[in-house]
Amino acid sequence: MKTGVAIVGASGYGSRELIRILLNHPGARIALATSRSDESPSVADLHPSLRGRIDLACVPFDADRVAEAASVAFLGLPHTASLAVTPALRARGLRVIDLSADYRLKDAATYADWYGHDHTDPIGLASAVYGLPELYRWAIPRADLIANPGCYTSTAILALAPLVASDRVERSGIIVDAYSGITGAGRTPKPAFHFPEANENLVAYNIGRHRHTPEIDQVLTDVGRPAAPGPVEVIFTPHLAPIDRGIHATVYATPKAPAAEHDLMELYRAFYAESPFVRVVAHPPGTKDTAQTNFIDLTIRVVRGKIVILACLDNLVKGAAGVAVQNFNLMHGHPETAGLI
Amino acid sequence: MKTGVAIVGASGYGSRELIRILLNHPGARIALATSRSDESPSVADLHPSLRGRIDLACVPFDADRVAEAASVAFLGLPHTASLAVTPALRARGLRVIDLSADYRLKDAATYADWYGHDHTDPIGLASAVYGLPELYRWAIPRADLIANPGCYTSTAILALAPLVASDRVERSGIIVDAYSGITGAGRTPKPAFHFPEANENLVAYNIGRHRHTPEIDQVLTDVGRPAAPGPVEVIFTPHLAPIDRGIHATVYATPKAPAAEHDLMELYRAFYAESPFVRVVAHPPGTKDTAQTNFIDLTIRVVRGKIVILACLDNLVKGAAGVAVQNFNLMHGHPETAGLI
Amino acid sequence: MKTGVAIVGASGYGSRELIRILLNHPGARIALATSRSDESPSVADLHPSLRGRIDLACVPFDADRVAEAASVAFLGLPHTASLAVTPALRARGLRVIDLSADYRLKDAATYADWYGHDHTDPIGLASAVYGLPELYRWAIPRADLIANPGCYTSTAILALAPLVASDRVERSGIIVDAYSGITGAGRTPKPAFHFPEANENLVAYNIGRHRHTPEIDQVLTDVGRPAAPGPVEVIFTPHLAPIDRGIHATVYATPKAPAAEHDLMELYRAFYAESPFVRVVAHPPGTKDTAQTNFIDLTIRVVRGKIVILACLDNLVKGAAGVAVQNFNLMHGHPETAGLI
Amino acid sequence: MKTGVAIVGASGYGSRELIRILLNHPGARIALATSRSDESPSVADLHPSLRGRIDLACVPFDADRVAEAASVAFLGLPHTASLAVTPALRARGLRVIDLSADYRLKDAATYADWYGHDHTDPIGLASAVYGLPELYRWAIPRADLIANPGCYTSTAILALAPLVASDRVERSGIIVDAYSGITGAGRTPKPAFHFPEANENLVAYNIGRHRHTPEIDQVLTDVGRPAAPGPVEVIFTPHLAPIDRGIHATVYATPKAPAAEHDLMELYRAFYAESPFVRVVAHPPGTKDTAQTNFIDLTIRVVRGKIVILACLDNLVKGAAGVAVQNFNLMHGHPETAGLI
Repeated sequence: MKTGVAIVGASGYGSRELIRILLNHPGARIALATSRSDESPSVADLHPSLRGRIDLACVPFDADRVAEAASVAFLGLPHTASLAVTPALRARGLRVIDLSADYRLKDAATYADWYGHDHTDPIGLASAVYGLPELYRWAIPRADLIANPGCYTSTAILALAPLVASDRVERSGIIVDAYSGITGAGRTPKPAFHFPEANENLVAYNIGRHRHTPEIDQVLTDVGRPAAPGPVEVIFTPHLAPIDRGIHATVYATPKAPAAEHDLMELYRAFYAESPFVRVVAHPPGTKDTAQTNFIDLTIRVVRGKIVILACLDNLVKGAAGVAVQNFNLMHGHPETAGLI
Repeated sequence: MKTGVAIVGASGYGSRELIRILLNHPGARIALATSRSDESPSVADLHPSLRGRIDLACVPFDADRVAEAASVAFLGLPHTASLAVTPALRARGLRVIDLSADYRLKDAATYADWYGHDHTDPIGLASAVYGLPELYRWAIPRADLIANPGCYTSTAILALAPLVASDRVERSGIIVDAYSGITGAGRTPKPAFHFPEANENLVAYNIGRHRHTPEIDQVLTDVGRPAAPGPVEVIFTPHLAPIDRGIHATVYATPKAPAAEHDLMELYRAFYAESPFVRVVAHPPGTKDTAQTNFIDLTIRVVRGKIVILACLDNLVKGAAGVAVQNFNLMHGHPETAGLI
Repeated sequence: MKTGVAIVGASGYGSRELIRILLNHPGARIALATSRSDESPSVADLHPSLRGRIDLACVPFDADRVAEAASVAFLGLPHTASLAVTPALRARGLRVIDLSADYRLKDAATYADWYGHDHTDPIGLASAVYGLPELYRWAIPRADLIANPGCYTSTAILALAPLVASDRVERSGIIVDAYSGITGAGRTPKPAFHFPEANENLVAYNIGRHRHTPEIDQVLTDVGRPAAPGPVEVIFTPHLAPIDRGIHATVYATPKAPAAEHDLMELYRAFYAESPFVRVVAHPPGTKDTAQTNFIDLTIRVVRGKIVILACLDNLVKGAAGVAVQNFNLMHGHPETAGLI
Repeated sequence: MKTGVAIVGASGYGSRELIRILLNHPGARIALATSRSDESPSVADLHPSLRGRIDLACVPFDADRVAEAASVAFLGLPHTASLAVTPALRARGLRVIDLSADYRLKDAATYADWYGHDHTDPIGLASAVYGLPELYRWAIPRADLIANPGCYTSTAILALAPLVASDRVERSGIIVDAYSGITGAGRTPKPAFHFPEANENLVAYNIGRHRHTPEIDQVLTDVGRPAAPGPVEVIFTPHLAPIDRGIHATVYATPKAPAAEHDLMELYRAFYAESPFVRVVAHPPGTKDTAQTNFIDLTIRVVRGKIVILACLDNLVKGAAGVAVQNFNLMHGHPETAGLI
């Protein structure tokens, strides 16, 4: 029998992708979708591309109603809104997969520093599992609350994890230079995303202060702990590029000992041997290779002594909705690739 | 001595182009720019691409101040706003070139029908000259108020004028199928122009009810009057295409007698022999050929008895700021191409 | 048991889409793929986006080998190449779905007129079924050779079929003004498709002489025959737009009697009531609504007495690979939507 | 009197921009253009956007003919072709501005290492002046042979020069992560630049072995020599982005002593105080701000102890044709900005 799932906050791009994926999932049934609008739009009204595939009217959020219809809730809500609904859903026995950043950072103080607000659900925060299956596959099956990772963060973390876990690189001075497609900015029109501004333009933003920074640091520090203690700190520069979807990260790390490309490729292949969505490739990967897929493509080079990792994924799939379904699969005993390949 | 000009409403894309052109104009000096903002942004703050080329702070609109500084005002204001400032400027002796639609339609009633409001300056309306130099070159030099034509309208009118003026085509059933770049929609962010919506998309809008329709009809009817009375009525379908700038119109007309391509090409070449910005070309023109220029490129085909005209221009230049400067040149005795070629 | 299928000519964009779709199809198994290259590239070498999803090396074409492995062959070959392989495949008992134009036109003479060569397989031509399920659903199940329709043609035909079948419109003077994404031009680099030429450009080509013209005429004439004899002739203008995928057609037809939008919408809804991939929508459809889907979206307007139909589809899916699978489904008794929704 | 100039190799994008700029230049007259084609195309045939602005047929290259017509030759030739024509032109007394890389590297051996061929004009190489006015303004006026800099190189060098010249940063481990628009790849169609491949894609190429690397190293080493000897070595990763024109470089350098953003901004402003085309801005610059202009926009940040410089320019203007005209201006005593602002 298919698991009933709720889409809480159905209007965004991530939720659209999630619905698209779940409609083909052998083990999930979309039982309910919510929207803040008073007009109860249908999912097809919100997302014309889904017309003819789903016939479902959105309802305003109500925890009881969600609990009646579904046993899992995917949250596609704006920043801090997940904090308001997660405790209510968990109290009613739902398992929650939160696509926002609200449960990703282990230390509540970091929210104050980087997000400018206090965290109001410390109990949830303490029990949340960071939903990056390639690193936390063991912990996800029993999780009740998944903090689904950010799109830049997954790219950067998966690009660096084999090096950090094997303690091959210096932990400071790591550079993550990344470009994102504009769906990454969400569906709300703003001047920077107005077509005549964003088109034909490349521009950096939030240099050194993007909120994905502490998330990358936290996870890589955790990944590196078994090999050696000490924090990882990345220098992260996000940019906008005029594409719909895709993140390209070029990552630079300083090896502790001279490194050969061939050995590094082998290291990566071994590290991700059990990860069906990580493709370690010989060529420089393009975002287009991964568009509309749940894959992340990676390759490694050594240039004048630096290790350069090139990594691509689709910010809406592997960077959001796809990995959410990957987590759903692990939580429910489905093959990790169900509905995703 | 250079003529002092004022840019009233400096923040839009059309005004940016106008400033860019005027900065290289041998006979004009930008003496003043206005903006609704209380913060008196500089022109370079509004338009970073102009930094280093102009050092001028915008001021709030004040008719006396404009009159002190300038003898010509270019109006780059939102719909109906020109109605409020034009009488005041004209009363102070300024010549006005209005880039909005506020003075384009001869019959005030048409504003009520197509724009949904009454026209509040019938005196101005009566004296306004439609600023399409290729057709009204004779009237522009003495004009005090120029209604600068719309971008779709210039494309459609120049594509059809030789046929209508020579009474070679039926006056109803003319089809104008046109696609515009997204600067045509202005600088205000809206969902339809949000990059992830507009990119990779082609979509029609305002089918059969775009406000440029009565403008095209009016001018073509006027152009056709000497040859034969009777209204021209076009069926006009505008679309959005994911490009910054450019309009491509494909126009279909029914000849009254069988027509040969070669003769039609000659007709067009003769009609526009004195028009330096109309290029009658043999190949299908692309919007990119005309981007950043004041040219309109045209070619003509006959297909199964229909006449097909293909026409391209840059909506911000030949469709707005460039033709405004063309009008300025005619009004001030400059060569028509000054600053534009 | 899944049907073994062969992809003959695996390197193009249409074949890539076909493979992508078939990998998720419950009733098909890709048994063999061919490529002209001597190097036997893998499918993943040809299409990096498919890496990790299919592990199959291409082989040179050999009819016996295809017949051993598969019972259906999809042909994704360049123009005229299908003529060379189809008879050999059919002689070996394979059913053939040809994505090229080689079997689409009923009258061999039309190939001479529009394609400039004689047709070398009149027997195949005589037995080929035009694979547009919305019109020929009854004939497809028993077909051994499917002429899969063109992308522009499906758009134009489905936009017009309800009007022509009900004899509501004049059969000459129908205008099909269409824009295509650039995958429609295939994968071979040429100047017109070089990024710096195609990007930010809108341009018409093959005006009045595109090879899809006789195909549209033929099918619409056939569709109209029951209601009234007489040929349909369209005036077809194709254009290139800077998008990857998608066709937008704006179609103009003259009604025989005054028509109301509401009635026409009803006519279309009734005509396509059994067609799961035709979405008759109220809003102007955008190509993006149909991208990556097998849907065609349509709406109808009446403007100054003309009927205007707006239609969109994805040229690689509903315009090529998707409809090929739709045909495969009908031929093998699968639900028409299998693998496609 | 205007200087007669020749465009040797008129068909590329750089030459098109050069012609466009020179047509508005107060001190230059395009006297001759060459093309390899036997068909003597007009400049307008090669570049439809220039039709109506220049009426000139290209001729095959002939050094005597060039010398008769012009006193300066701009070379827009493919790699190594400048080596064949430069000595002949100089022998006839022409001054040469070469837009290729053929005279940029001081050490002939570097051509063998990075370009894979010997340099055949050591005399020319010895006398060539590197045409980056912001650094070599003093040497350009008397130069007879200008090696016009590369597009990536100008971006990287101008981003780093103030830091290297003042010896504030380590000379190894400097990272130049850069994205280019696709005009940078030239006008010849190739698979990577085919619209459906390049569009919606971000991808690195020539990682660690792009030929602009030794050029950046060479110039920065030269710039740093007065402050301290020792080579500068950059780690340079070029990428393609789906835009027509523009380079965005994000550059990371390690300060020798802790650095404050404000001081660095002042350092840059002072360093470029006499350079009218360098805009040191407070905001992160976008490529679009510099498109169609000869400006380079720069800003500086300090992130976790690293200095991050963000730099943008138009690869066809400031990265090629614009700086060539800037050099022309300096060579002929025109204001540096003549024809360029």
